[in-house]
Amino acid sequence: MSEALLIIAASERDADLYYATRFLAPDPFPFFQVGGERIILVSDLELGRARSQAAVETILPLQRYEDRVKGRVTQPTLLDAVDEALKEREIQHLLVPGSFPVEYADKLRARGYEVGVKEGTFFEERLVKSETEVAWIAETLRLAEEAMDVAIQAIREAEIRGTELYRAGERLTSERVRGLIHHALLDCDCVADRTIVAGGEQGSDPHHEGVGPLMAHQPIVIDIFPRSSRTRYFADITRTVVKGQASLRVKQMHEAVLQAQARAVALIRDGADGAAIHQEVAAVFESLGFPTGEINGRMQGFFHGTGHGLGLEIHEPPRIGKRGAILGRGNVLTVEPGLYYPGEGGVRIEDVVVVTERGCRNLTNFPKLLEI
Amino acid sequence: MSEALLIIAASERDADLYYATRFLAPDPFPFFQVGGERIILVSDLELGRARSQAAVETILPLQRYEDRVKGRVTQPTLLDAVDEALKEREIQHLLVPGSFPVEYADKLRARGYEVGVKEGTFFEERLVKSETEVAWIAETLRLAEEAMDVAIQAIREAEIRGTELYRAGERLTSERVRGLIHHALLDCDCVADRTIVAGGEQGSDPHHEGVGPLMAHQPIVIDIFPRSSRTRYFADITRTVVKGQASLRVKQMHEAVLQAQARAVALIRDGADGAAIHQEVAAVFESLGFPTGEINGRMQGFFHGTGHGLGLEIHEPPRIGKRGAILGRGNVLTVEPGLYYPGEGGVRIEDVVVVTERGCRNLTNFPKLLEI
Repeated sequence: MSEALLIIAASERDADLYYATRFLAPDPFPFFQVGGERIILVSDLELGRARSQAAVETILPLQRYEDRVKGRVTQPTLLDAVDEALKEREIQHLLVPGSFPVEYADKLRARGYEVGVKEGTFFEERLVKSETEVAWIAETLRLAEEAMDVAIQAIREAEIRGTELYRAGERLTSERVRGLIHHALLDCDCVADRTIVAGGEQGSDPHHEGVGPLMAHQPIVIDIFPRSSRTRYFADITRTVVKGQASLRVKQMHEAVLQAQARAVALIRDGADGAAIHQEVAAVFESLGFPTGEINGRMQGFFHGTGHGLGLEIHEPPRIGKRGAILGRGNVLTVEPGLYYPGEGGVRIEDVVVVTERGCRNLTNFPKLLEI
Repeated sequence: MSEALLIIAASERDADLYYATRFLAPDPFPFFQVGGERIILVSDLELGRARSQAAVETILPLQRYEDRVKGRVTQPTLLDAVDEALKEREIQHLLVPGSFPVEYADKLRARGYEVGVKEGTFFEERLVKSETEVAWIAETLRLAEEAMDVAIQAIREAEIRGTELYRAGERLTSERVRGLIHHALLDCDCVADRTIVAGGEQGSDPHHEGVGPLMAHQPIVIDIFPRSSRTRYFADITRTVVKGQASLRVKQMHEAVLQAQARAVALIRDGADGAAIHQEVAAVFESLGFPTGEINGRMQGFFHGTGHGLGLEIHEPPRIGKRGAILGRGNVLTVEPGLYYPGEGGVRIEDVVVVTERGCRNLTNFPKLLEI
């Protein structure tokens, strides 16, 4: 009786499964690994593509296992086929990710399998980026920076009439700038959705996407996080700019965010505790006169994590936030402190770094100008 | 002691959760429903946005419940907070979707909750589209048709040199046509990824995306499935075209696919069995001399489902395929038979229909010309 890792998921939505197979499919398929052998079961529809693309040792036709069950059940399910394939290899013990569907887990247990659940990251090596993976992330980041440049150029070149911004005779809106960013990314085979271009008051909500006309003399938060369609790796970058003159308070916020970010970057290294770094960032803000808390039912100040892992997922472990996580060499992380105050707006600056033994290397090149 | 529905997921990836809350968030948050009250627990980061956007009765700050646990545990987890919130309402029995993470299910059971698993669709009403939802899908479909028109125009206007296609002096490629489609969709606030533009031999693999130069006189499969960023509803359309002269065999394949599609559409109605319709489509192909099976290790003929439900997910129940599903009024479905033969290529035609009491209404308007 032997043991296997088991995932049943759609690799377009499950980063672990894509990582293990490098085969992208829109519908769930079973993957199991026994020792060093990675095995997938695929439908007739995907068989040809799997054979040419999947980086696994063994590709089994799902149909074969469904056919074997047909004598016993009229409508074989995916789980019937999985059961057959596991029995064939005398597998009794399964280890599944925490995200494994409870429906399948319950049914496998009812069929006598011992189903262990691995908490946290299923493939820990996925968080330790190889040089190739770092290069892929950096490549996507270069394209994100080009898109950021397009956005900032458009805002810079806008004409100020009163406090309104005009471009080619029309009001410059969040939607228009977002469109420029998305088209630029598409030209480089990247997909971005929900890109943030949030000006003024809207920017005081960190996840507000931004709608309507952008204004002069107010901070505009631009947060771009494209995925490369070719490599599937994400990048993530945020800059905050003001077309015209920033208020003194916004300048101070920007300066504080820069200092907090520099402090975080200085602390990141192999073995560092993410929670301690996050506390330190919060302390920098407090010491510079930027308190955090709920006022009139709204959160103000710095009320999100300092950063998150980045790779095949836009948000993956480890996190630099309230909940501690020890950082390790090869982790790729965002560092994105921000300040948000109703009446002023938001200021966030985000870079991507890779953790090294004695520090970290910043993969982001883009300048951090406030007034443009 | 009362009962609750429970979902813990990221609504950007979980259609049920988005359906229940109409609140889009990139990270997992807990949702539970007790009687008619829908409740979500959200982090400080999302609190402001949730209050203005979520269509639920009650929004609770996650932090409040984490704080309550802090006396007992040093690092409260998401599940600690969920536990607190459930206890507050004296909930002991939970009903979760089949996709619910086994890690959470196991831990909730260990804490004494009875966790029932609902198989199949969690919110059955999600598959019965309202008039508004049908209008949203139709709206996305109109935009997909405009993008299809852009693609077909580019191929139609290409110049044939020998068997090669040229546009503005350059070889016309799958990548270029895909780019035109994606830019057109982006202009209408739609996101498309993995759009298929597969010519000749590549088209004989139904999910091949298509790479490199497109050729004259060979079938080109174009499959576009954008999501509206505004409504989150998908559309799905496939056409197959030939620039120049199609071979007799490809013309026969195209005619057979049209007939098979018409047969399926004629059979779709409230109460119809998807498996029976799929068998009928397969029978049409057999009777017209287009067999299905594996030859030299490759599947040929018609070896995918006839159609799938469409809505907040690109693939959702019910399916018209080998596994039976009874269709019901208000289901929105693709109808997409296809034929695939190495040496000839692929032909697929896909429309979207909404099931009515006595038949179905085709939401797709786009013509089905082969030679252009």
